[in-house]
Amino acid sequence: MTIKDARTPASTHDTTETSTDEESGKSIGWHKAYVEGSRPDLRVPVRQVHLTNGQSVTLYDTSGPYTDPLVDTDVRRGLPPLRENWIIARGDTEEYAGRPVRPEDDGIKHTSPRGGLRNLDAVFPGRPRQPRRGREGTAVTQLAYARRGEITPEMEYVAIRENVSPEVVREEIAAGRAVLPANVNHPEIEPMIIGKRFLVKVNANIGNSAVTSSIEEEVEKMTWATRWGADTVMDLSTGRNIHTTREWVLRNSPVPIGTVPLYQALEKVDGRAEELTWEIYKDTVIEQAEQGVDYMTVHAGVRLAYVPLTANRKTGIVSRGGSIMAAWCLAHHKESFLYENFEELCEILAAYDVTYSLGDGLRPGSIADANDEAQFAELRTLGELNRIAKRFHVQTMIEGPGHVPMHKIKENIDLQQEICDEAPFYTLGPLTTDVAPAYDHITSGIGAAMIAWWGTAMLCYVTPKEHLGLPNRDDVKTGVITYKIAAHAADLAKGHPGAQEWDDALSDARFEFRWEDQFNLALDPDTAREFHDETLPAEPAKTAHFCSMCGPKFCSMKISQDIRREHGGTKAEIEEGMAQKSKEFAAAGNRVYLPIAD
Amino acid sequence: MTIKDARTPASTHDTTETSTDEESGKSIGWHKAYVEGSRPDLRVPVRQVHLTNGQSVTLYDTSGPYTDPLVDTDVRRGLPPLRENWIIARGDTEEYAGRPVRPEDDGIKHTSPRGGLRNLDAVFPGRPRQPRRGREGTAVTQLAYARRGEITPEMEYVAIRENVSPEVVREEIAAGRAVLPANVNHPEIEPMIIGKRFLVKVNANIGNSAVTSSIEEEVEKMTWATRWGADTVMDLSTGRNIHTTREWVLRNSPVPIGTVPLYQALEKVDGRAEELTWEIYKDTVIEQAEQGVDYMTVHAGVRLAYVPLTANRKTGIVSRGGSIMAAWCLAHHKESFLYENFEELCEILAAYDVTYSLGDGLRPGSIADANDEAQFAELRTLGELNRIAKRFHVQTMIEGPGHVPMHKIKENIDLQQEICDEAPFYTLGPLTTDVAPAYDHITSGIGAAMIAWWGTAMLCYVTPKEHLGLPNRDDVKTGVITYKIAAHAADLAKGHPGAQEWDDALSDARFEFRWEDQFNLALDPDTAREFHDETLPAEPAKTAHFCSMCGPKFCSMKISQDIRREHGGTKAEIEEGMAQKSKEFAAAGNRVYLPIAD
Repeated sequence: MTIKDARTPASTHDTTETSTDEESGKSIGWHKAYVEGSRPDLRVPVRQVHLTNGQSVTLYDTSGPYTDPLVDTDVRRGLPPLRENWIIARGDTEEYAGRPVRPEDDGIKHTSPRGGLRNLDAVFPGRPRQPRRGREGTAVTQLAYARRGEITPEMEYVAIRENVSPEVVREEIAAGRAVLPANVNHPEIEPMIIGKRFLVKVNANIGNSAVTSSIEEEVEKMTWATRWGADTVMDLSTGRNIHTTREWVLRNSPVPIGTVPLYQALEKVDGRAEELTWEIYKDTVIEQAEQGVDYMTVHAGVRLAYVPLTANRKTGIVSRGGSIMAAWCLAHHKESFLYENFEELCEILAAYDVTYSLGDGLRPGSIADANDEAQFAELRTLGELNRIAKRFHVQTMIEGPGHVPMHKIKENIDLQQEICDEAPFYTLGPLTTDVAPAYDHITSGIGAAMIAWWGTAMLCYVTPKEHLGLPNRDDVKTGVITYKIAAHAADLAKGHPGAQEWDDALSDARFEFRWEDQFNLALDPDTAREFHDETLPAEPAKTAHFCSMCGPKFCSMKISQDIRREHGGTKAEIEEGMAQKSKEFAAAGNRVYLPIAD
Repeated sequence: MTIKDARTPASTHDTTETSTDEESGKSIGWHKAYVEGSRPDLRVPVRQVHLTNGQSVTLYDTSGPYTDPLVDTDVRRGLPPLRENWIIARGDTEEYAGRPVRPEDDGIKHTSPRGGLRNLDAVFPGRPRQPRRGREGTAVTQLAYARRGEITPEMEYVAIRENVSPEVVREEIAAGRAVLPANVNHPEIEPMIIGKRFLVKVNANIGNSAVTSSIEEEVEKMTWATRWGADTVMDLSTGRNIHTTREWVLRNSPVPIGTVPLYQALEKVDGRAEELTWEIYKDTVIEQAEQGVDYMTVHAGVRLAYVPLTANRKTGIVSRGGSIMAAWCLAHHKESFLYENFEELCEILAAYDVTYSLGDGLRPGSIADANDEAQFAELRTLGELNRIAKRFHVQTMIEGPGHVPMHKIKENIDLQQEICDEAPFYTLGPLTTDVAPAYDHITSGIGAAMIAWWGTAMLCYVTPKEHLGLPNRDDVKTGVITYKIAAHAADLAKGHPGAQEWDDALSDARFEFRWEDQFNLALDPDTAREFHDETLPAEPAKTAHFCSMCGPKFCSMKISQDIRREHGGTKAEIEEGMAQKSKEFAAAGNRVYLPIAD
């Protein structure tokens, strides 16, 4: 059987029969394969799971070349520029000298006593090319192409990934119901799409902070997150070395990278919100666009008039970007410079195909503040900005809450879809209660699954460290896995074609006691295997027709199988055979338990 | 402020100002208190959280006398029989000699070479009394009392716990919409109620199996589960020493204990389902009722005619009890002996006030099998049995699925409520996808929150080990916490009076950087504190106005507070003051960051 989540490989280039798990050293039953499209340089990666019954299952794969043993990756060189020829062939972009990288891009002041932090070793050694942008006044966005009726290689690529026709992809992008984030300066990415007609996507946040973490850690967090299924990664770094960290992350990332340019802009004014200017912000956006950032969170919906709406809130403004813009607006008693200069910003983004992620700077940070006036006032402005962005052919998605109790979730997605002309919704959680710090991957996983069922296109993960500290490697994995569960549960509930085949394959393996297949099909094979082995470590237990939960006598699946074996497999056979066979069944002892515990 | 989840203590008997966490040795800001009812022997325990701002919050408490430093508990003696006088005072029960305990009750055969397993040391030393039952033909159930208009001390107790009037409790029980499981032979319990008008409850399963675990471990798992918030515990032991393990668990349990008598009955016939008889089953029910089991899962809905309906399923029958009964029906080609003898069973349960938990033996075990003919055929029979039970004044709840994708969950609860006259629904999960073994607490936590919002009264937890192995101490805790999140999220969504006050208290603490209060109000204070300290271990960080996630410059809550401080607290004040204050704000530098990272 084949999982249509990804697609039946019409032509696959197998790289190896089985891969080896890096940590355990065990040979595991899956390998990386590729589905070839209409041209030889269009090869879509899939994860092919080989089952012990000879069947195989094909799953969507976000892990990039790192899981392909035939590709020799080197973080100092970066990934191969998969899309470079496609971009050049379109003939609508040009290389140019680009903005020089300055010490302050990495948060280094001339006056800083710690200026030496940015040493030459940290600079990414393998930068391969000059920046590229659309020729004068040209929107080089997937939205512009889709509107013109063009099916780009990127669109064909995601069509194969999603198992739909390229025309469906083009239509959804053209209508603004989906985005394909792909900066012309990030040719390394394997294209993916975000829209409610497609598989629900998951974003993982990484980023060093002023308090902890290093460049190497951030690159490793990115590859770790995509290994477990993150579809995009946001680099939310706020400390020093922001520019350099981002360069390493971009050059090594197989998935689109998102940022919040405001964070870096604020570093450039030494953390003084009131000193921010449109010029500094704009310069930062260009800096990041030249590096290849695929989507940017822009908090242009936090308008001066909305700030007072947060005054009676329990938790005020909890979006960092939102609070920075609110502070700026109040300090100057002026309308937001992001709102005022939004059209110019659109022109810049259109020249690189940077996708907007219109930030919800006034999202609620507690159950008490959910769905309030401040939140919905901003949402209406985001609807207005979405229409402006579309005039400039800029792809746009809309960010959503936050903390929302279950009964108020549907109102959020329904309003967003209505106000924003069905632009993709990209939500953080939402968290369905405030009382469980250390478990907010779960409080939010509940809300995430529900809002994704109702139409959210991408979920921003939440880790167990939310509200408490900076996520480490384990937290990143837990966050991604939790959100992949939410996303897949939503794919099932939406009836996404083929989504259930994955569940069916795993349930078949479970019912037939194919333990190895059950592990290999699991979202996290390592932990599933480890948990099984904790109680029954011996190799024979991997083929045993029971597990330690119930023991051999009480395994209901075993009993079900005995019933089928004794009474024939189909309903008709069972009904026919029931009367005659009942005596034989009793005579045979009705027992085939393995003689382990008794 | 006060959390009304529990209740404002009109009169509390404080036991200590702060408790000490057993493991860390730290003094933490909560203590056990009691709310006194209309009589001095009616004292309802609460968890009183003391905040650093002088306020306190009262939370529902399931942890029993173990968290009261003034009570000297001893697992060899058992808990004090809280309800004994109430039961005796009703004058409708009698003590009697009871059924002698036999070696086979602990799975020991005369012929067994391992008969010595049951040694005298294992027998519970502190058994304090003879069994008790209703006088000839008397239903001594809370349902019978409620129907007669009586408000028992147990009803008053739960009314205080739930912060509702005793009359509401009586009405809900009388209408069959709620159950108060309280066997007359389990006087140790602190009464609790299960019904959709009340707080959503969580059950934790424990139980040794043929493969692993010991008596001591099971008792410890029970106290561990209730410490984290389990409202009831099911003892699903299937190995040897079943009777003895259960005695230890019952005598030490402050929460109602549920069982599946069929498991023990099957042990008595050496695992041969076809050798089960009504007599053996009935004897086992009486044995357990005399010990004090509060509710029993009875798979009387698995009728002969339904077994063939499972033949084309992906995962057959996954309920252990269901598969045993199906095997029996087929072996004899006879109607289920549980169905045939259901009225006699009602008489027995009524004499001890054992509550029915009508088992869903044909619940789906995979996404593919959800909401199928087999499942709903059984549900209709459960509706029929519920009405019979009510004729005998036996309290009844109905068990539910299983594996169900999100879009099919509501149909389950709606049908159950309709068919079973709003009897409390008690659901396992449901799991919303099959693909994440090792994370089924999460796949099911999503479904649990949703179905509880829509009316499920009690959730049966699922641990990370589901499908893989036997849960250990950590798994039990993770399962309970995950389900407390689901239950509380549902309480919020249902608008349960006072539920949100807990969230509000925690969010207030978060906004005001009262870290210690945030930890102490958390569902799991230990882990919240540990996660915080992982990145910022120093004591000053507990009072810092930021955390390691964003660092001092980027803390949005900090910025929000600065805005409020500078511009006045209310909306009107902000609007008034905005223009004038903006200049001062800029002049003041708009910075109050702590000088840590810069």
